[in-house]
Amino acid sequence: MRAEIIAIGSELLTPYKTDTNSLYLTEKLLETGIKTDYKTIVGDSRETLYKAVKDASKRVQLIITTGGLGPTEDDITREVVANFLKKELILHEDIVSDIKKHFSFRKLKMPEINIRQGFVIDGAEIIKNSVGTAPGQWYEDENIKIAILPGPPSEMKPMVENFLLKKLKKYSSFHYKTRSMRIVGLTESAVEEKIEDIISGLKNPWVNILAIPGQIEINIMARGKEGKDEALLKGEEVFKKVYDRLKEHVFTLQKDKFEKVIGEMLLKSKRDIAVAESCTGGLLANRITDISGSSAYFERGVVSYSNRAKIEMLKVKQETIEKHGAVSKETAKEMAEGIRKLADTHYGIGITGIAGPTGGTMEKPVGLVYISLSTPEKTEVFQYRFIGRREKIKWQSSQQALYHLWKDLKGDE
Amino acid sequence: MRAEIIAIGSELLTPYKTDTNSLYLTEKLLETGIKTDYKTIVGDSRETLYKAVKDASKRVQLIITTGGLGPTEDDITREVVANFLKKELILHEDIVSDIKKHFSFRKLKMPEINIRQGFVIDGAEIIKNSVGTAPGQWYEDENIKIAILPGPPSEMKPMVENFLLKKLKKYSSFHYKTRSMRIVGLTESAVEEKIEDIISGLKNPWVNILAIPGQIEINIMARGKEGKDEALLKGEEVFKKVYDRLKEHVFTLQKDKFEKVIGEMLLKSKRDIAVAESCTGGLLANRITDISGSSAYFERGVVSYSNRAKIEMLKVKQETIEKHGAVSKETAKEMAEGIRKLADTHYGIGITGIAGPTGGTMEKPVGLVYISLSTPEKTEVFQYRFIGRREKIKWQSSQQALYHLWKDLKGDE
Repeated sequence: MRAEIIAIGSELLTPYKTDTNSLYLTEKLLETGIKTDYKTIVGDSRETLYKAVKDASKRVQLIITTGGLGPTEDDITREVVANFLKKELILHEDIVSDIKKHFSFRKLKMPEINIRQGFVIDGAEIIKNSVGTAPGQWYEDENIKIAILPGPPSEMKPMVENFLLKKLKKYSSFHYKTRSMRIVGLTESAVEEKIEDIISGLKNPWVNILAIPGQIEINIMARGKEGKDEALLKGEEVFKKVYDRLKEHVFTLQKDKFEKVIGEMLLKSKRDIAVAESCTGGLLANRITDISGSSAYFERGVVSYSNRAKIEMLKVKQETIEKHGAVSKETAKEMAEGIRKLADTHYGIGITGIAGPTGGTMEKPVGLVYISLSTPEKTEVFQYRFIGRREKIKWQSSQQALYHLWKDLKGDE
Repeated sequence: MRAEIIAIGSELLTPYKTDTNSLYLTEKLLETGIKTDYKTIVGDSRETLYKAVKDASKRVQLIITTGGLGPTEDDITREVVANFLKKELILHEDIVSDIKKHFSFRKLKMPEINIRQGFVIDGAEIIKNSVGTAPGQWYEDENIKIAILPGPPSEMKPMVENFLLKKLKKYSSFHYKTRSMRIVGLTESAVEEKIEDIISGLKNPWVNILAIPGQIEINIMARGKEGKDEALLKGEEVFKKVYDRLKEHVFTLQKDKFEKVIGEMLLKSKRDIAVAESCTGGLLANRITDISGSSAYFERGVVSYSNRAKIEMLKVKQETIEKHGAVSKETAKEMAEGIRKLADTHYGIGITGIAGPTGGTMEKPVGLVYISLSTPEKTEVFQYRFIGRREKIKWQSSQQALYHLWKDLKGDE
């Protein structure tokens, strides 16, 4: 069975808003074994929506609409789909009474216009809305299956999980399985080169490589019948081969955030950390503290943007800055050692560099960054030359700092 | 003229990637006076793309495709559109020679498969690619107009600006004009209430309100003929009325980032700043230093996550923490004053709170945040109760801190 998702809403045809529901829907459908062939976006216009539904009905067997179920004149989905199916809309008093309860629970009176949300296409099943007011609807006959879902993700998702996927299960003889891994410390092209012979030409399973600076995610997806299906087995085999080539760089098989994985390693090893940042300007501390519970291992951070701050707070020696510059191996080292001593932690990280776009010189160009990791045993300094815009250079610097920390934690496991 | 954008690429039908080209395209088309009625997304399949183009040709007068112009077997756009138009594909040697130059400039030999990118639909105009290898194409006859553009935004955008918009100008008798403003210090519902009587029921001009926590953007768009058109004049009038109601909260009419506006005000007033963060964990410093040139006014930051850090680095009194707690009005005040004195800056900001999801109590729940702004004249403390997830609470805290700073800078202008 092939599907088309139709997202409805004039705001989705402006430069300001993009449809994200369909990302969730394609994933859930895939897991059920249903492939999405088309995604269509239309505004709140009866004419264009009618055409979109009609065209979709000729090219796929399952249509899923999201949006256009509100109580106003602009919310046209019920009406247009009923029109297309040549069915009546029937007012369900029990839905209206549910909507009234929803309002009275919030000590409000239901506005008259909300009655519109009580209309259901003749012959359609009602999909309960556990969060908001508009119910979803499910219609099927010998020609077409249509699921009508609300636009807000918080209302749409429970309907998919509690109703739609169960409904669709019986129409799918296929099954999709995805294995994932996330990787640090390798560039995208290095990853591709390492696994090219394994993945090239694969159609089922197929391999998707997603890169953000400093991190690569690999998804291996296979489609097959449940059980000992050849494609599913082959998917598992490809996963193992890829993992084997890259395992030294894999930090999660569960799509966990890098900061979270590192936090768990710090907790487990009972080690704490403090950071001294110059060019990253607080980004590293911010990323570490995005993890709930990070106060257990993150002691403090210093954003030593000025030389005075480096000297006063981190005890970087004035001569070091004068002789080697604020952006230097030596300064990074003294920053890492300084913050570690100041905070009395196991780890200290120091970062100094030129984030740009101004401030670069021939000798010290934009993107030159020194990262130092200090422990009670040793202090190391790594030199990088990042490219890209300011935010990207900041991001990569924080990512590589976390990478060196992760390697050290891993080495001691 | 009505348009449909067709984005081509199987990766756009996975949960991993969304089409963003169409946001840019709808905006540029709107400016030219052309409304996008449909956006369609299809995979790299000859059959589905053919159907998509065919259906589009029946419902709109202009089709714009993006993607599927690469050199591999999967890049099917040229072929499918030629098929649909019942036209030949003709190899243009001059394009191949341009592609060869593109490779040799990077000291590479052109792979044989790239010859595919030299094929042009009979009767189509070539749109030069100033960045990559695949040229775009423009085809028009009495029935349909089709622009074929590459997927990478860096290649697509110059083609739109240098070729497509000029081409389309003659088909549009309309003109769109947008006026924008960004607002801080008001909630979305407060903004709506303040301007409801001005904007309610408006269709042309129409008003779009976009909210992110702590910031609202209002766009007023009008469609009309150039010159003294009624709708355009009315758009200007609505803009002025809305601005008048909200002007105390408007920080930019140019869509500038809040951090940037504040940076310019700091520069202009020759004032500098240092920040002491607890629950925001470096986010505020990170946002301030995202602005190029911020080292001119940002002296330093301290992420005092532990009590010890607050006491040692910021000179917060131990008794204050013992008596009132680390999350208290008093601690926030001492943090702001402490960092201001330490850094010897005009402004000091102190933030302490509970970002959650753990760590809340009945008395001090998750979301409770104290923000203090200290100047040589006075130190103020503001109490907030934010709701939402950890990252959202951190964001809103940093946003409100910037808001109080902005108000102070503004008051002195």
